[in-house]
This record gives sequence, structure tokens and C-alpha cells, in this order.
Amino acid sequence: AVAAADLVILATPARVLLRQIETLGPRLRRGGVLLDLGSTKAAICQALDALPPHVQAIGGHPMCGKEQAGLDAAEAGLYRGCTFVLCPRPSAGPEALALALALIRRIEARPLLLDPDQHDRLVASISHLPYLAACALVGQALTVATEAPAVWELAAGSFRDGTRVAASDVTMLLDILLTNQRAVLAALDGYEMHLRRLRQLLAQGDEPALRQLLTEMAQARHAWARARAAHATAGSSDRAG
Amino acid sequence: AVAAADLVILATPARVLLRQIETLGPRLRRGGVLLDLGSTKAAICQALDALPPHVQAIGGHPMCGKEQAGLDAAEAGLYRGCTFVLCPRPSAGPEALALALALIRRIEARPLLLDPDQHDRLVASISHLPYLAACALVGQALTVATEAPAVWELAAGSFRDGTRVAASDVTMLLDILLTNQRAVLAALDGYEMHLRRLRQLLAQGDEPALRQLLTEMAQARHAWARARAAHATAGSSDRAG
Repeated sequence: AVAAADLVILATPARVLLRQIETLGPRLRRGGVLLDLGSTKAAICQALDALPPHVQAIGGHPMCGKEQAGLDAAEAGLYRGCTFVLCPRPSAGPEALALALALIRRIEARPLLLDPDQHDRLVASISHLPYLAACALVGQALTVATEAPAVWELAAGSFRDGTRVAASDVTMLLDILLTNQRAVLAALDGYEMHLRRLRQLLAQGDEPALRQLLTEMAQARHAWARARAAHATAGSSDRAG
Repeated sequence: AVAAADLVILATPARVLLRQIETLGPRLRRGGVLLDLGSTKAAICQALDALPPHVQAIGGHPMCGKEQAGLDAAEAGLYRGCTFVLCPRPSAGPEALALALALIRRIEARPLLLDPDQHDRLVASISHLPYLAACALVGQALTVATEAPAVWELAAGSFRDGTRVAASDVTMLLDILLTNQRAVLAALDGYEMHLRRLRQLLAQGDEPALRQLLTEMAQARHAWARARAAHATAGSSDRAG
């Protein structure tokens, strides 16, 4: 099947992809397009670049997903309005890129071309870090619960949302973390600096500085939500038009 | 109005409450019940305990809420199924507590009696910490965005949920943090330890230990969600019965 296809899309956890690219990739027909949907891109694009030159390879990453894994979690419209990162490899000609872009239009996602290292650096802070931050929140609740199980009764909206992704598929997340180790460690270091700044201002009881910092963050979060809502609206009118 | 009422409920930010308890509290009629709905309880219960003994005081904290403030954000059914903490003061007799419990039943919440210090210690980890963790996630995204604004395009579900509460009303949150400073600092310290453990295992590439830790956290998050769903179901059948 792989040998006959114009386009082969691989959508498996990152380290499974590394093996599949090596074994399935060379079997594509001359000029066949290989698109992967892995959550990290630097290691995967290295594997794509090592393929024989008759394969046109493109790294991809749709920025959507859910904490459930498996076919039971399949959802029509999952990609609608989401950003779909593409990292075209040197082996991919303009017609291969056009094919990938047509696919993205078809599922109503928004294409974004990025360098693989840049992609990995950005998703480390915006996606992989939130996962670890959520896990550590659960860890802290577990610590408190050893002496006071009532803590679980008190957990409400902020805990629910702040820890949702901690319930994600561990195998998938391990693949992500271990193929993006350096960028995730850097994101954790940056995160710790922000936490320490907040801790310092609270410990000092420096209310004006704390208010200013928290207000900046609240405004940035509001601005992001507004921009996201605007994209969603633009997407709807595209569909209507 | 306060002087004639059987029950006075104060629902304002924590530091406004401290002032209102001092000014309005003494004006209650003999045996009148004063219930506050403040998000922290130790400082507020101290203020309640300083009232003249003719007032029956009860500290309260319904564990629900939303990131919007003001009357426009009012929502019927907001309290349904949520845990409602009560910290009855020595001045409150059994009939005062019965009145508060009847109110909680009426709004279909679940009462939980706690000591004020214990309450503050637990909500520091399960509610105030998630707020600061969310703010620091926004802070890290802002840092990355200064060099790569595309990071906002990549923000998806894990960022959305992990940072939702960062958009909360800053004045309300400042009141919470500054009236629960010590417990929040301790929760931040515990959180940092969990983050460092995760960082260490990732830096070492210790996959088995990392898998075990992430699996524990995922299982704890699943267990909490299941227990919460069971409560919600029990609540529905109560209403039907």
C-alpha cells in the first residue's frame, strides 16, 4: 500500500514514528509524499532528511488533541480552526507542499510553516510545559492528601482545568518529552523563574508589584483568548462563504 | 437591615470582608447569624471571633466560582454539587449551624466542616497554587513570545485549560493570596519540589522512573475525576428523590 500511495500520513507517538519513517519511508514510490503528524519535529525531521531522495518528506504537527488515546477517542471536526504546523524538508517540491496545504484546507485547519527547531522550542513552552506543570499540581495534591484526604473534596474548577492534561496518555507524552528533552528542560527553567518571581513578591507582601505582574498575565491571557475567538469566527465565515 | 435580619451573608473579596465584619458584625441583633463566603478562612475567622458574643458567626467557603467577576457573571445553579466548607465559630449554637446547613442543602451543595487553618492549608495547594501556576505559564509564554510571537498561534488545549484561571479577577486573587500568604508560600515550595523531581528524571533520561511518576499522577487525576462524577450523579438522584 505504501509503495503505491501518492501520499502517506503517519500519525503515531513520536518514537514509533522514528522507526516507521526508517522502515516504511524508503518503500514509497518515486515522488511519493510522506507526511508525519508527530508532536515534536527536530528528531523526526532528521529522520525524514535521512530518507532516500526519491521520497518527498514533510513534517507536520496539528495543534489539537485530547487527553484520550485510541480509536474510541476519534472525533470528526477535531482539526477545525486549529493551527497545523508544516516543516517541509528539502526533498519536498512545491507540488508536495501544495498537496499538504490542500489537505489542511480540507480539514479547515490553519497552516503555519516553521523550522523544526523553532517548532520544538515553542511547543516546549506552550504545550509540553503545561503538561508537566499539571502533573506537578497533581503531585502536590497527592502530597497534601497523604495527611488530609479532604483536599480532594476541595478541588474545584481551578484544579480541574489546571490538571486536565495530567490525565493524558503517558506513553505518548513520554515520547514527546524524550524527543524534546533539551527544549523542555529550558522551558522548565524559564517557568521556575516566573514562579520564583511570584513567590518573591508574595513573600515580600509587595502588593503593587504583585498586582502589576498578575494584571499583565491576566491581560495576556485575555488577549490570547480574544485572538483565538477571532480565528474561530473567521473560520466560520470561510465555511459559510 | 443588618440589625433586623436573622441571617446576614457577606460575599465580598477577603480583605473587604475583614472590614465589613468589623463594621457590620456588631450591628446584628442578639442571636443573629453572620455567615461569610470568603475564599480564605483563618484571618476572617479571627475577625469573626473578635465580634461581640451576641452574634453567632460561621465562616463559609463554597468551592465553586468562575473567572468573571461582578453581577453580570451571576449564574443560577452555580453551587450545585460543589463542596461548601463551614467553619462554625464558638459563638454559633447548634441552631445557627442548622440554619447554615439548611441553606447549603437548598442550593444543593455538599457541606464540609473544617478548621480554618486546615482549610487555608488545603486550598493553598488545590486552588491558590493552580492560580499562580497558571500565571507563571502565561509568563513563560510571554517570555517566549518576545522573540517568537508565533508561540500564541501554537497555543492549544493544554495552554487554554492550564491558564484559564490566570484570567481571574486580580483584586479578588490578591486578597486571597495576601490573606493566605504563609500557606501559599508553602504550597509553592512543595510544587517546586515536584517540578524539580520531574526535571531531574527528564534530564537524566530515566524513562522507567519518569513513566512511573507520570502514571501515578495520571491515575490520581483519573481517580479524582471519577469520584467527582460519582458525587454529581448522587446529587442528581437526590434531586429526583
